[in-house]
Amino acid sequence: VAAEGGSATSVGAQPAGSSSSQYETLLVTTENNITTIKLNRPTKKNAITTEMYKEIIAALEQASSDSSVITVITGAGDFYCSGNDLTNFTKIPEGGLEQMAKQGGELLRQYIKTYIDFPKPLVAVVNGPAVGVSVTVLALFDLVYATERATFHTPFSQLGQSAEGCSSYTFPKMMGHAKACEMLLFNKKLTAVQACDLGLVTEVFPDSSFQKEVWTRLKAYAQLPPNSLFLSKQLIRSTERELLHRVNDAEVERLTERWLSDECFNAVMNFFQGRAKL
Amino acid sequence: VAAEGGSATSVGAQPAGSSSSQYETLLVTTENNITTIKLNRPTKKNAITTEMYKEIIAALEQASSDSSVITVITGAGDFYCSGNDLTNFTKIPEGGLEQMAKQGGELLRQYIKTYIDFPKPLVAVVNGPAVGVSVTVLALFDLVYATERATFHTPFSQLGQSAEGCSSYTFPKMMGHAKACEMLLFNKKLTAVQACDLGLVTEVFPDSSFQKEVWTRLKAYAQLPPNSLFLSKQLIRSTERELLHRVNDAEVERLTERWLSDECFNAVMNFFQGRAKL
Amino acid sequence: VAAEGGSATSVGAQPAGSSSSQYETLLVTTENNITTIKLNRPTKKNAITTEMYKEIIAALEQASSDSSVITVITGAGDFYCSGNDLTNFTKIPEGGLEQMAKQGGELLRQYIKTYIDFPKPLVAVVNGPAVGVSVTVLALFDLVYATERATFHTPFSQLGQSAEGCSSYTFPKMMGHAKACEMLLFNKKLTAVQACDLGLVTEVFPDSSFQKEVWTRLKAYAQLPPNSLFLSKQLIRSTERELLHRVNDAEVERLTERWLSDECFNAVMNFFQGRAKL
Repeated sequence: VAAEGGSATSVGAQPAGSSSSQYETLLVTTENNITTIKLNRPTKKNAITTEMYKEIIAALEQASSDSSVITVITGAGDFYCSGNDLTNFTKIPEGGLEQMAKQGGELLRQYIKTYIDFPKPLVAVVNGPAVGVSVTVLALFDLVYATERATFHTPFSQLGQSAEGCSSYTFPKMMGHAKACEMLLFNKKLTAVQACDLGLVTEVFPDSSFQKEVWTRLKAYAQLPPNSLFLSKQLIRSTERELLHRVNDAEVERLTERWLSDECFNAVMNFFQGRAKL
Repeated sequence: VAAEGGSATSVGAQPAGSSSSQYETLLVTTENNITTIKLNRPTKKNAITTEMYKEIIAALEQASSDSSVITVITGAGDFYCSGNDLTNFTKIPEGGLEQMAKQGGELLRQYIKTYIDFPKPLVAVVNGPAVGVSVTVLALFDLVYATERATFHTPFSQLGQSAEGCSSYTFPKMMGHAKACEMLLFNKKLTAVQACDLGLVTEVFPDSSFQKEVWTRLKAYAQLPPNSLFLSKQLIRSTERELLHRVNDAEVERLTERWLSDECFNAVMNFFQGRAKL
Repeated sequence: VAAEGGSATSVGAQPAGSSSSQYETLLVTTENNITTIKLNRPTKKNAITTEMYKEIIAALEQASSDSSVITVITGAGDFYCSGNDLTNFTKIPEGGLEQMAKQGGELLRQYIKTYIDFPKPLVAVVNGPAVGVSVTVLALFDLVYATERATFHTPFSQLGQSAEGCSSYTFPKMMGHAKACEMLLFNKKLTAVQACDLGLVTEVFPDSSFQKEVWTRLKAYAQLPPNSLFLSKQLIRSTERELLHRVNDAEVERLTERWLSDECFNAVMNFFQGRAKL
């Protein structure tokens, strides 16, 4: 964003008084009425660790109450986000696997809940490949701009897991059952153009002009009457907010069970031992 | 329609006994089992005045009980409909702005309600650009045929307003959240082909053959077993009728508040003073 | 399937102990974790008789409890399925037409219910044209692969009938109202590519390589962790299962009335007398 020039300010300059330096895994800035949350573990393809889930929740809560009009999530480096960091499964707490699954489930539930309840227009600037939970939550964004280099992959079955991020509801609603199951059950990886045809992506841009075109547009959008934007977003969300929360709860319950299954254990072990390629 | 030849009859020839001359802003005719309601303010791009809202409601109620099988809405001249006539906002009643907003809201609520409850196949013959409420209600039609010249524009945010016509529900359902928000929040204007790709339009025709192709098809459709058509339409609508009414109520409540906001006042004033271009 | 080679076994080799020879109108086999139900009345374009409805229900119930991971429905010969066998209407039981309509409605209700509740991934291998109920239930499948030769046709109105198979809900949800009504009310026949664009079909294949490409893919899918597949499918279905049952009940009630109407009687008579061409 800094490359865009202009009056970039760390969020430390906001009345709320917090600064982007409060985050270990994110870069958060506000300028031109836009708060940008940049996933900042580029050497790990922005895989989401337990700490990073918590920081994204905190950054979204902060953005929801700051003075910005639009909130953007994007990734540092060549990847948008490679999804749940599978090393999260290797940090077994005192309570053992069951404790790990329970805590992981509760964190995921809170993470998705934050997207469902986010009150302002939320925009994904998908700067590269996206995997897993970073794909499923896109259906809870209001705009999704993607570089032509982006891909969209939800290999839940392959890893012995099950659909999350409300995708068991949002994907069939958006793209029809026959296309949604190919992604959610059978691990189909989509190109950016395919994801756009299916409604997951708003528009695809050439990689060379992606950042310039997207940010020019977002700066213009951020000048629109903010209350009109907030109220229209809330109207749209209100029809299905309660359903989304129920879907989230059901998905997390199912996934927590999955994490304790032999199927999942074996699939994740195969992944770490390089015997499985996503 | 007269150009189609055949046994055109004014509705005065119907048992109900009313004639198209009862309308100031519409031309209403019935022939070949088809009742056609033509918006007839071509010099004003068929913008909908308060009177015109009332007349369309009356014409739809009449069509729902006449002997026709299919009801068509189309526009006179080069425009389909430019939406709500913004001069409606300049006629302040004795009760002041609040009274105006309340009356306007109730009229809009009744207007949309009439579409939700319309019992027969309803077809839009979109003969040119469509704006605002004339776009949103298209999702409540059963067929939408458009000339390639048509465009579809819902600049609610730009005018400090919010989504109506059940579009906060129907648009995301039809085209996915990422595409719907581009229209409903960020004022994206669609071409006819884009609207067809997103499911808002059934089919796009070359402008030169538009009227001929569409009316040939509609005349054939109007010969189908009418009760089968009515019952299938009612089956489809019944699953979401109550939800549509709730969405309509919520949207009108929100919009009525918007009409009294500074954001809306300033945006509409800018429009009248030519400082804003849609 | 036999042409695929490999360890084909009749279901008689399964613990459940039933054999494909138990069916008059179907060929049922299980191999490579896939149970395949092949509609086997090729000289009648696989039109579904009363007996065949019952056998498909039985075969699906058997597949839901056998050891296979994926269940496939396909057709023998050049047609996938020409829908409800209209000669079903000519076998009037002792109770007369009303008894026939009541029994036919209850059988259809059970038939659709079996699809709604089917617990495993269900795949349609659409090897040729599909008509009527064989089209509408596709929206209850998880994957739909079609040869380019396939077409999709639901001429309910033309036959004086009304939408079934939950299509009055699933089709508008999937493809939008404007496209769904063209099929369900106005008898539009889709090509395979059109059906794929609208989300009814997952992917279209050249006819020459159809069987090879599809079965290669399905064999790979059938090696995925089965519980992950079952649970993800059930998550997806659970959000709308109750609604689907209600829609099915309402559609069958409406259709049972239709079967006793003059409109339907005349339309079906015209069909048998060759005066109507679908």
